[in-house]
Amino acid sequence: MNAADLRLPVDVPSTALFTDRYELTMLQGALRSGTAHRRSVFEVFTRRLPEGRRYGVVAGTGRVLDAVENFRFDTGVLEFLADRKILDEATLGWLADYRFRGDIWGYPEGEVYFPGSPVMRVEGTFAEAVLLETVILSILNHDSAVAAAASRMSVAAGERPLIEMGARRTHELAAVAAARAAFVGGFTSTSDLAAGFRYNIPTVGTSAHAFTLLHDSERDAFRAQVDSLGEGTTLLVDTYDVAEAVAMAVEIAGPGLGAVRIDSGDLLLLAHRVRRQLDELGAKDTKIIVTSDLDEYAIASLAAAPVDAYGVGTQLVTGSGHPTCSMVYKLVARADEDGADAPLRPVAKKSMGGKASVGGRKWAARRPDACGVAEAEVVGTGEVPAELVDRQLLVPLVRGGEVVAREPLSAARDRHAQARAALPMSATQLSRGEPVLPTEYL
Amino acid sequence: MNAADLRLPVDVPSTALFTDRYELTMLQGALRSGTAHRRSVFEVFTRRLPEGRRYGVVAGTGRVLDAVENFRFDTGVLEFLADRKILDEATLGWLADYRFRGDIWGYPEGEVYFPGSPVMRVEGTFAEAVLLETVILSILNHDSAVAAAASRMSVAAGERPLIEMGARRTHELAAVAAARAAFVGGFTSTSDLAAGFRYNIPTVGTSAHAFTLLHDSERDAFRAQVDSLGEGTTLLVDTYDVAEAVAMAVEIAGPGLGAVRIDSGDLLLLAHRVRRQLDELGAKDTKIIVTSDLDEYAIASLAAAPVDAYGVGTQLVTGSGHPTCSMVYKLVARADEDGADAPLRPVAKKSMGGKASVGGRKWAARRPDACGVAEAEVVGTGEVPAELVDRQLLVPLVRGGEVVAREPLSAARDRHAQARAALPMSATQLSRGEPVLPTEYL
Repeated sequence: MNAADLRLPVDVPSTALFTDRYELTMLQGALRSGTAHRRSVFEVFTRRLPEGRRYGVVAGTGRVLDAVENFRFDTGVLEFLADRKILDEATLGWLADYRFRGDIWGYPEGEVYFPGSPVMRVEGTFAEAVLLETVILSILNHDSAVAAAASRMSVAAGERPLIEMGARRTHELAAVAAARAAFVGGFTSTSDLAAGFRYNIPTVGTSAHAFTLLHDSERDAFRAQVDSLGEGTTLLVDTYDVAEAVAMAVEIAGPGLGAVRIDSGDLLLLAHRVRRQLDELGAKDTKIIVTSDLDEYAIASLAAAPVDAYGVGTQLVTGSGHPTCSMVYKLVARADEDGADAPLRPVAKKSMGGKASVGGRKWAARRPDACGVAEAEVVGTGEVPAELVDRQLLVPLVRGGEVVAREPLSAARDRHAQARAALPMSATQLSRGEPVLPTEYL
Repeated sequence: MNAADLRLPVDVPSTALFTDRYELTMLQGALRSGTAHRRSVFEVFTRRLPEGRRYGVVAGTGRVLDAVENFRFDTGVLEFLADRKILDEATLGWLADYRFRGDIWGYPEGEVYFPGSPVMRVEGTFAEAVLLETVILSILNHDSAVAAAASRMSVAAGERPLIEMGARRTHELAAVAAARAAFVGGFTSTSDLAAGFRYNIPTVGTSAHAFTLLHDSERDAFRAQVDSLGEGTTLLVDTYDVAEAVAMAVEIAGPGLGAVRIDSGDLLLLAHRVRRQLDELGAKDTKIIVTSDLDEYAIASLAAAPVDAYGVGTQLVTGSGHPTCSMVYKLVARADEDGADAPLRPVAKKSMGGKASVGGRKWAARRPDACGVAEAEVVGTGEVPAELVDRQLLVPLVRGGEVVAREPLSAARDRHAQARAALPMSATQLSRGEPVLPTEYL
């Protein structure tokens, strides 16, 4: 993917500007002091999960790879930085040739994580690695927050499909990333056409109340929709009276009507009533889709109701109460001098107010118990114990600046389902609790 | 702005795909049933403010205008819709020529709003107006949520500058919009270079803990930064010991040191200690900037502390607990037949579960009391009472498809400050309460 071929309605020419100014001023300072080319290791991790959550979900990894590939300082960006006097000439010259040539390791997309899990590790010179902080955190913090909510909702929904329909509740491009993250977390489809276009996620959608209100009667609207989309369509039945609408829907579409959608009212009660009515009308295969400010708890409360699919908007795209993940990007080790072979020294900020970091380049592994169920997230520096070598979680994503870990989105989705299934059973309780695995430091 | 000139690292070619699929299937159904060209009025409003909030802030209006201008179905989009069999040939043909040719009215950007305020009104044929629902809501719901949080923070900060630094906590493009909305709400600057590039918002930033850790000592790091950025820079003093760092900072930069930044610990206590130390060292003009998970309450709690500026990240970009505004886009009136002169009929969904709408094309005005303080948000259909004619809130934004209300972002920022100042005093209490103005329907 070449940045020059990419077009979008915000005229920012490259991912290089998705960057806090201080990344660039640090670069300038380090170039001046001669420390810019010290080999450095940055790690992404969270100090805690959102309150009550039992696991986190890594999402956005594929988008990070896109962002790193497109992280270039082209003429337009350099002119901006020069015009605003943000950087000196030497730094602008260095940036003109910039591209990331280091290595990135990470938990593969869809994997679960816990407090302290080094979900991504960026290695290179300080200069090349520090610049990626902001955009990597933006992507992982947003996408992982949505994926975590999606994962909980997919647990609550069981085998029933989940439709992502939150585009209108979040920034128009965050919506595209949210649909992608929701798919990783277990959602089935999206209402967002941009997500279908960009990530090939199946799109769905038929009509809103406006369509009914546009027509002279609900009957006219239903007939128009069935004429246009066929009897397999989903008719929205709560614009006026639900029971009348359901009767009319089956009358017009016939018993082969695909589905009815209920978007307001007491969904539990209505689902039972509508199911009974549909069955009595002979529309035994007509499905019931519910959509109305659902979250994982509302979905769970409908588990015993005759509901066939859930559409989720606001609570999904806002991370169900936790719209960001508090992942940080910290320098954990660096060399004392230039050169690829200079030994690394662990570094860490002093603890104050809970902002401590653990220094050193880390590995991570998930230790299973005798039955194969995960029992601990083990994070260490130095050598990996022999029994954990094959249980390591970090995989190479970028080597020498080249992306080495492209995969279809469905791979991340499958991986998430497997990783979640390997956790202790209490992982998928919706009630508040502690992280389901302790993090052990070796 | 021409869509073809716009480039960004998500390869979606136009704002037309920031759309829920059902908008397009409704279009297809309406084209089939002959209702697509009925004159229609859609309104954007919220049923309630987030719990405890006393006013909302309209933000994103300028971005809506960009999105409407770029809402075109080019070849790439049409091929996608055809390939996935989302639409029939007739609808695809209609979309190829699409551009919005109707009218949009709205509360001007920065204006405050209340439950039921018709913050935007889109008028045109059903076909042309229904398509804009998703992207308009995405923008207004996101940007207004951030602006509302920003406004509360700017009340808490008083005259002290507020720095937006939340890019890493939200989607990388949501971050750009968030910086813009924060500026409307009263913020002074941003760390986000893309926001500086795109919206000309002043950018700031100097260094993070990584810069100190990169160097062999804090002294080396401070010297490197002062060498690079001058004595007016801001030194980060909480990597190791704050008191030692402050002493060293003044020693290295001299009493002309621009500022010190404290990013952890008990900010209230530290601010007092650091101020005293700076004064004793003769650095009486050196400012103190604090940044550490601040929200409006933390900012308010520092009002009496010797703090000169606040940097705010997570809580700003996530709307301080309310990351979206629950604005909806509802058909409120439509004609029974085609034609620009066909009379409008109010329409509304039946109330169920609090999802009622008030039908009819609405005006809105803010009624002042005898002292000029706002006392009610008056919303009505039909004729505007004479005493409210000059108090109307909706202004033309688009006429016949042409944008007529471009303005610099500073105009929206100034408008917000004025609108907020005209509210009753209790508007700016941070404690939870009811909307500060009642909404009266005429």
